[in-house]
Order: sequence, then C-alpha cells, then structure tokens
Amino acid sequence: MTDTLAPADYLADHFEQFTDELLEFLSIPSISALPDHAPHVAAAADWVAARLRQAGVTTVEVMNAGGVPTVYAEHLEAGDDAPTILIYGHFDTQPVDPVELWTNPPFTPVIRDERVYARGASDDKGNMLIPILAAEAWLQTTGSLPINVKFLFEGEEEVGSPHIEQFIIDNRDRLGCDYVVSADGGQFGEEQPNLLVGFKGLCAVEIELTGPERDLHSGQYGGTVQNPIHALARLIASMRDDEGRITIEGFYDEVVTPSQADSQQIAEIPHDDAEFAQGLGVDHLFGEPGYSTLERAWCRPTLEVNGTWGGFLDDGVKTVLPSKAHAKITCRLVPDQEPAVIADRIRQHVLSHTPPGVKATVALSESGARPYLVPGDHPGNQAAGDVLSDLYGQAPYFTRSGGTLPICSVLREHLGVFTVIFAFALDDERAHSPDEFFRLSSFRRGQQAWSQLWQRIAN
Amino acid sequence: MTDTLAPADYLADHFEQFTDELLEFLSIPSISALPDHAPHVAAAADWVAARLRQAGVTTVEVMNAGGVPTVYAEHLEAGDDAPTILIYGHFDTQPVDPVELWTNPPFTPVIRDERVYARGASDDKGNMLIPILAAEAWLQTTGSLPINVKFLFEGEEEVGSPHIEQFIIDNRDRLGCDYVVSADGGQFGEEQPNLLVGFKGLCAVEIELTGPERDLHSGQYGGTVQNPIHALARLIASMRDDEGRITIEGFYDEVVTPSQADSQQIAEIPHDDAEFAQGLGVDHLFGEPGYSTLERAWCRPTLEVNGTWGGFLDDGVKTVLPSKAHAKITCRLVPDQEPAVIADRIRQHVLSHTPPGVKATVALSESGARPYLVPGDHPGNQAAGDVLSDLYGQAPYFTRSGGTLPICSVLREHLGVFTVIFAFALDDERAHSPDEFFRLSSFRRGQQAWSQLWQRIAN
Repeated sequence: MTDTLAPADYLADHFEQFTDELLEFLSIPSISALPDHAPHVAAAADWVAARLRQAGVTTVEVMNAGGVPTVYAEHLEAGDDAPTILIYGHFDTQPVDPVELWTNPPFTPVIRDERVYARGASDDKGNMLIPILAAEAWLQTTGSLPINVKFLFEGEEEVGSPHIEQFIIDNRDRLGCDYVVSADGGQFGEEQPNLLVGFKGLCAVEIELTGPERDLHSGQYGGTVQNPIHALARLIASMRDDEGRITIEGFYDEVVTPSQADSQQIAEIPHDDAEFAQGLGVDHLFGEPGYSTLERAWCRPTLEVNGTWGGFLDDGVKTVLPSKAHAKITCRLVPDQEPAVIADRIRQHVLSHTPPGVKATVALSESGARPYLVPGDHPGNQAAGDVLSDLYGQAPYFTRSGGTLPICSVLREHLGVFTVIFAFALDDERAHSPDEFFRLSSFRRGQQAWSQLWQRIAN
Repeated sequence: MTDTLAPADYLADHFEQFTDELLEFLSIPSISALPDHAPHVAAAADWVAARLRQAGVTTVEVMNAGGVPTVYAEHLEAGDDAPTILIYGHFDTQPVDPVELWTNPPFTPVIRDERVYARGASDDKGNMLIPILAAEAWLQTTGSLPINVKFLFEGEEEVGSPHIEQFIIDNRDRLGCDYVVSADGGQFGEEQPNLLVGFKGLCAVEIELTGPERDLHSGQYGGTVQNPIHALARLIASMRDDEGRITIEGFYDEVVTPSQADSQQIAEIPHDDAEFAQGLGVDHLFGEPGYSTLERAWCRPTLEVNGTWGGFLDDGVKTVLPSKAHAKITCRLVPDQEPAVIADRIRQHVLSHTPPGVKATVALSESGARPYLVPGDHPGNQAAGDVLSDLYGQAPYFTRSGGTLPICSVLREHLGVFTVIFAFALDDERAHSPDEFFRLSSFRRGQQAWSQLWQRIAN
C-alpha cells in the first residue's frame, strides 16, 4: 500500500507545477487542419517528448507518420508476466474560428473559476498529459511502474488521422500490447463516471459547383443562367428530408439497429431533452424521427454540412451572380457502415442530383474512420470500472459517443486489440467551440485515477 | 460649323493626355461597398471636382449626401432660352474579389490591346469622364457651351445609392433641368448603337439563421439539433422552383407582362442563345420558362443569392455543426414592382418557411430602386438617336437592361424629368467581374458623341 500512497502524495504535492506545465503545453497553437500551423504541431510533439523524458520514461522518440510528428515512448521494466498496455492521446487541436467569440485568445491559456480556458484544454491536451504525470509519480516515488507501458501520441486526430493507420502497420511489432487505454474521451458528469464502449466512424466529402466561368453582374445576367448558390441549396436540401432523415440512396443499408438491450441500457441513462435544448440555446431539438436524442447521437448515422460558401461574403451589397459555390460535408457512421462506401454514395447522389446549368466536382477526403464498439466486460473495462467506482462512489454507465476516435478501429484491425477509454473531459467543456475549457478538478482526479489504474491492471 | 469642328479637333489632339488622366482616375480604389475604402471614395470625388475645374466649368462643389461625397457642378451661360440638361455618372466602383483572378491588380490600370484594364474602367469611370472632357473641348475652343449643363456625380451607385434620393429632394431647385443625360450605361456593340429605355429596380435582403447558440462538435451533437446550413439550403431552395420560377408568394403580382409590341421589338434584336452560353462558359442557359433569354434579362424580375456562408471555410476538415448561416439576396424588379413591397414579401416568405429548429432574422437593405422606363420618342432620345445614327451609320436598337440605375426613378419622382442614357460601355467588358476593361475606341468615340450631342440638343 505504500506504493500506491506514495504516487498519490507525489501527485498532490506537484499539482501546482503540473498545472503550470499544462498552461505551457496549451500555449502551443498546434492546429492540425491548417498547413501554416505545421511548425506548431511539431513543437507540441517535441514538448510531449521532453515531458516524457522528464518523467523518467526510458525510451522516448519523435517519429514520422506520413510527414506528421508522432510521439512514441515505452517503459517496459515490469517483466514478461506483467500486462502491457498502450496509452493513446493526441496533441493537435481544432482550429479556433470564430476567434472573435473567445473571451481570451485561444492559445493564451488562463485559469478562471478553477477551469483552464484554451483551445485543446479538454480535447485532448489536458487529458493526454495526465498519464505522463501519473507515470512520473510512480517512477519518482517507487522507481518503477507496476505494468509495462507504451505511449502513442499523435498530431492529426482532429483531421481524422489520415496517416496513423500506415504508421501502425509499419510499427506493428513495436506497438504490440494486451490492449490500448485511450486518454482521449470523457466522463458522464462531475459525480457520475462512465465507460465509453462505442464511437462513430467518419467520412468527409467536399462539393464544388461551378456555373458561369466567372462572377457575373446579377442585373445583366440574372435570370439567364443557373446560380450555383441556388443549385447548391437544392442539392443540400436533397440530402435530408424535412424531418432530418438522410435521403442519400443506400445510406442506411448497412446500419445495425440498436438491440432491445442497447436501447434499454441507453434509456436508463438520465437525459432531459428540454434541459439539453436549453443548454444549446435552441427552442426544439431536431433529427431523425423514431429515435430518442441519445439514440440519434450514439446509434444513428448523421450527415452534416460543416461549412458552405459562395459569392460575396463581405459587408454591404454586391450584386453578383457567382461562378462557384462550395460545401464541406462529414458523416458520422455507425456499425456496419464503411466510410469509403458511404462517401461514394454521397458522390453518386451529388452527380445524379446536380441541378441543371452547373457542373459538380466531389472530393473525397482521405480522412475516414470505421465505427467501433468494445465489449463492456473486456478486462480493461473491468479494471477501469473498478477504479472509477472507487473514485466516484458510483458504478459507471456504459455509454457511446457520437464522436470519432479513428484510432480505435485501426488498432483493432492491425494490432488485434480493443481500446478502453479512460479520460476525464466533460460534455459542457466546449470542445471544438470558442472558450473551450478543462476543469482543474478533472485534471486532479484524472491523475489519481491513472495512478490507481496501473495498480489495478497489475493485480 | 467651325464651332463643332474645333471641339472635335481639340478632343483628337488631347486623346493621349485624356487617356493618361483616365488611368490616374482608375488608380483610386473607390469601392463604395467596403467601409474601409471611404477615404478613397472621397479622393475620387476630389479628383472629379478638380478635373471639372480644369475643364473650365464655372461652378464646382463637393457636396455631402448623407456622409458620402457627391460632386455637383454647373455651367449655365447659354441663356434662359437654351435647354438645360443634368449629366449623371458615378465615381465609385464594385469590390474586386476574387482578386486572385485579376491578371493585373484591379487598381493598377494597364492598357493591353487598346483596352484599359481596371476596376471601374467600364462601370463607370471611363464613361463619366467623357462629358467632362467634351465640355473642356467646347470651352477651350469656343469659350462656351451651346446649352446649359449641370453635372451630378455620385459615390455610392454600386451599393444602390441609399442617400441620393434625400440629396435630390434637398437640392431640388438647384438640380432642376429639362431632362437628365446619364453617362452610366452602354451600347449594343462596337458597330451597333442602342438607346436604353428601361432598367430594372432593385431590392436587397440579408438572412441570418441561428441554430445552437455556439458552434458544436458535429459528433457529439450531430443528429440532435437542426444545422442552420441545412435549414438555409431548404429556405433558399423554397424561393425558386426547379425551373427557376420564383415561388415567393405574390412576387409576380404587380409585374407588367411585356406587350406584343415590346416582345416584337426585343425579338428583332439579334441574339444567339448558344453563343451567349458559350461566352459565359455554361452548357445550358437556365431560367423562368416561357420567356426568351432577353425577355428574362430585361422584362422579368429575378431573385439571386449573391453570397452565402456558414461554418468552417478554411482548408481541411473541421467537424463542426455551426451556430449560424447567412445569405445575401438581391432581386431585380420590373414595372410595377415596388422594392419595399417585394423585400417585405421575401421577409414574410422567410418567416413562414423557416425550417424547425432555427431562428431567422431578415435585414432589409436601405438600398433599393424602382424599375424605370423612358418613352422611346422623348426629345432627348431623339437627339441622342440622331448623334448615334450619324456616328455609327446605323439606327439604334431600343433595348432594356437587367441592371439598375436607381437614380432614374428617383429623378423622375422628385425632379419630374426623364433620363436619357448616353454611354459607351459594352456587355463584354466584365463589369463587376475580374479583369474589367474599357475600350479606348469607346473612350474616343464617346468624346465625339458627347461633343455633338450638345450641339444637337441646342438645335
């Protein structure tokens, strides 16, 4: 018992220092979607590698995943009989626009009301730093870790991890483990833990419609040629019906309907539609009829236009009939939808529904991820569930997420292992939005949780 | 005859100097739609005033039209028996985006192949400079003008002249005239003159749809709330049917159908749909069934989205469910549609067709103009027609324009006078588009035409 108390005390004693280090980490604008930020993604990788070395982890390396820096580390001194886990997280962040809606600049982290505000605070820098600190606590107080630990931190999760699959194939032996524990994910609430057992997949397409070869005077030419913005509106409108059902031919063909047991498990989780709507500032929720809000978010595929633009975007009036209009679309997928198949069905839909007078091009993004489910009684989930039950005084719910951890299905396919989600973000922390934050209470509890998890896995 | 030959020779002798002056005028980036460019609009006004003084015009003043500089000048020495005309033009320009499609920077004028390339070259700086030069030619060679001439050059035509109406009301007596001659407009072709007898009106609205109060993670929230981009697509799609008819309730109620004579006159004007389509780079023309292309452009009202945006617009993938989506719309109106009435019907349509789950706000722009028609046999049209017939060796067609000269209906209402269009732009000169240009041949012929017009009016 001395062994687990000592790391716990070490974590408590160093909390202020660790918080300062988190602020430093968050000040690196490692936005993976914007090519101009590649140097900052690299700087974040170097920061993570240095912090692992400082923790006492024996082997630390910044590797190259298709041009993107990826941090790998290992500390394998617990012996062949001890389990080996691979810890996953990511040090890249979402973009920051609309930047004018941030209270403070997104990469100038500040603490207000016991929360750290910065882009990436909750997703995922705050969470991924925690197991490094927990490792340090064990190594500095006991000189060892109770299990064999590997670390894999990537730099392009927020763009759909286009290169991680090849990286994992190329490093299959080195990454081998009993299972993965992901430091990207969250808990149900401040007082209620959960185990995430399912993620949606992802596919992305971008549409460009071209009408006249140049922008035209809307007076001289209005009414004589198709306007690509009007054509794009008809095309987007053709993709979902007025109740939110997706009308792409074949879109739902491979969708596994939630089992009675699944639906029951979900129905037991407290959820209030009115409160949910109020929290988002909308009068009504909206979506595919016949499913509850949580079922739509967790078990039903979605198609959302993430961005659209065309013509004149500045202040004032410009009487132009534009040459082009654009839309960026992503779908969230559920078992057994295949990203490439769904992307291709969207392309077919665009080509067969393009209104007259415009030409369409459809770019299928390399970003894509299969949907993923892990058994609730997996040994990793059992260990994690025990730690969470102890720390929260409540058994965890078994939930799913509408989000995507592309890595899970990739690790399953190439390493043959499942991934257990063990992270401490909360849903209200504005991931991907202005004023993202992470609770210091989660940062503190997460450190204790990871420190105990290793002991629990070792037992 | 000495009197008319002398100005003609003066114009020919000074053509090179006048061309240099046009380039200088075009180098002022007087974009009226962009507030940052207000100082350049003011600089353009000062340039015009200085050029009028240099020409020998007796009274020149930069006046204030609701905060926007407006140039007024007069030379009233032909006596009470001589006719008085008011010359109209504008020194503001359209914006320049997409600026990357310009061969040369839009405000660095260059001459290539006997054409002046610059934003505003054709619309309207090239045209509005011409009568100033023609006045100089008369004043420097004969010491006088054969008629009384007033000049009114405005600085916000390209945003729909929101302040000119009040300015005209406030200066009604000073602006009094027998009729107006507009130096904003064009000819049918290099060899074929025309008299423009009709313009469309204009109204403008801007729509903002708001779904969730902040941008959301499309995984966590996709499928649970309305996406304002999808809602906007449905809304835009609801405004026109799939053949291009406008489906706003009451939109066509006051539209005067072209008379048999009108249709006949238009049918006589040579027009080739295939050539027209090829010139715009489209496979098919598109628009309201039952009308020819010229009828749609000239006699039927239009509704065009000029710009739309929402969500993530940068490179790459951002999995966001955006809070807002926007569209800017202008309609081109025909007799007897009222801009305010049509704008209000669009607002009603938006409010009654807003999809569930989003809130709509509709801003009605102050920019607006009534449609306008001038009798073909008006004395000003007769004088202009005689000059054009002489110069081109062809009688002019009587055409209309899908464009808007808001000033025409305002002058008709408050000064009780018609406006004759006497200008030399051609349809292929890319007004409002990248690589706008003006032909030096038009600049030359326009100067002779204006010089002769005054003599013809005096007779």
